[in-house]
Amino acid sequence: MASTWLSEINWSDDGLIPVIAQEVKSGKVLMVAWMNREALRLTVEKGEAIYWSRSRKKLWHKGEESGHTQKVMDIRLDCDGDVLLLSVEQSGGIACHTGRHHCFFRKLESDQWVITSPILKNPDTIYKK
Amino acid sequence: MASTWLSEINWSDDGLIPVIAQEVKSGKVLMVAWMNREALRLTVEKGEAIYWSRSRKKLWHKGEESGHTQKVMDIRLDCDGDVLLLSVEQSGGIACHTGRHHCFFRKLESDQWVITSPILKNPDTIYKK
Repeated sequence: MASTWLSEINWSDDGLIPVIAQEVKSGKVLMVAWMNREALRLTVEKGEAIYWSRSRKKLWHKGEESGHTQKVMDIRLDCDGDVLLLSVEQSGGIACHTGRHHCFFRKLESDQWVITSPILKNPDTIYKK
Repeated sequence: MASTWLSEINWSDDGLIPVIAQEVKSGKVLMVAWMNREALRLTVEKGEAIYWSRSRKKLWHKGEESGHTQKVMDIRLDCDGDVLLLSVEQSGGIACHTGRHHCFFRKLESDQWVITSPILKNPDTIYKK
C-alpha cells in the first residue's frame, strides 16, 4: 500500500481538499486552491504545486502558462485531515492571476474592502491569448 | 446599505466561507474554520473570531470554553472573494483542539504524515466535561 498517506486525508465528497500556499521567505499566505488525489500525488512527485481547477475541471500545473510556478518545500495536513498547507517558493513573486504577489489583497477597513497590494505585472502580459 | 461589504463576499451555496487564521507574531497558519454572514458580522463587531461550527450547526465563539480566544487584527478577502484570511493574536498560544499551537502539525516525510508539534496542554484539562 504505497499511498496510505493519501488515504489518510479526509477528501470531500467530490474528492477534493482545499490547499493553502504560504510563501517560505515572507510567511505570506499567497492563495488557496484545490487538489484531488492525482494533483497531490503529482505535486509530491514533481516538487511543484499542481492543483485541480474546479472551473476548468482539470489538473492545473500552477505557472504552466504564466511561468509563476511554486516550488513545494513542505506539505502539512491539519488535525481534521481536511486542509493542506504548502510551504512554497513563488517563482516570479506573483501568485495571483491579477498580477499581484498574493490573492489576499483586499483588507476590511471601516466596512469597505480596500485594495492594499499593487499589481506587479499586467495580467494581459502574463497570460498569452 | 450598511453591509454592502458582506454582500461582496462569494458565499458558498450553504452560505459559508472558509477562513484561515494566521498568527500575527509568528506568521504561522493556525487553523481553518468557517463563517456565515452572522459569524463574520459578529467577528467584526466584537474583534474576536466567531466561527460557524459545521458539525454543531451553530455559532462558535472560538475560545468560549477553552479560553483560547483569537483577537482579530485584520481581515482580508481573496481575489475570488471566496476565502477570508484573519490576522490574529492567539490567546494562550493554543489554537488547536488537540492542545497544540496550531492545527497543521502533520508533515509529509517519505510518504508518511509525521507529527511535528508538541501537545502544549492536555485537551482533557482544556475542555470541561
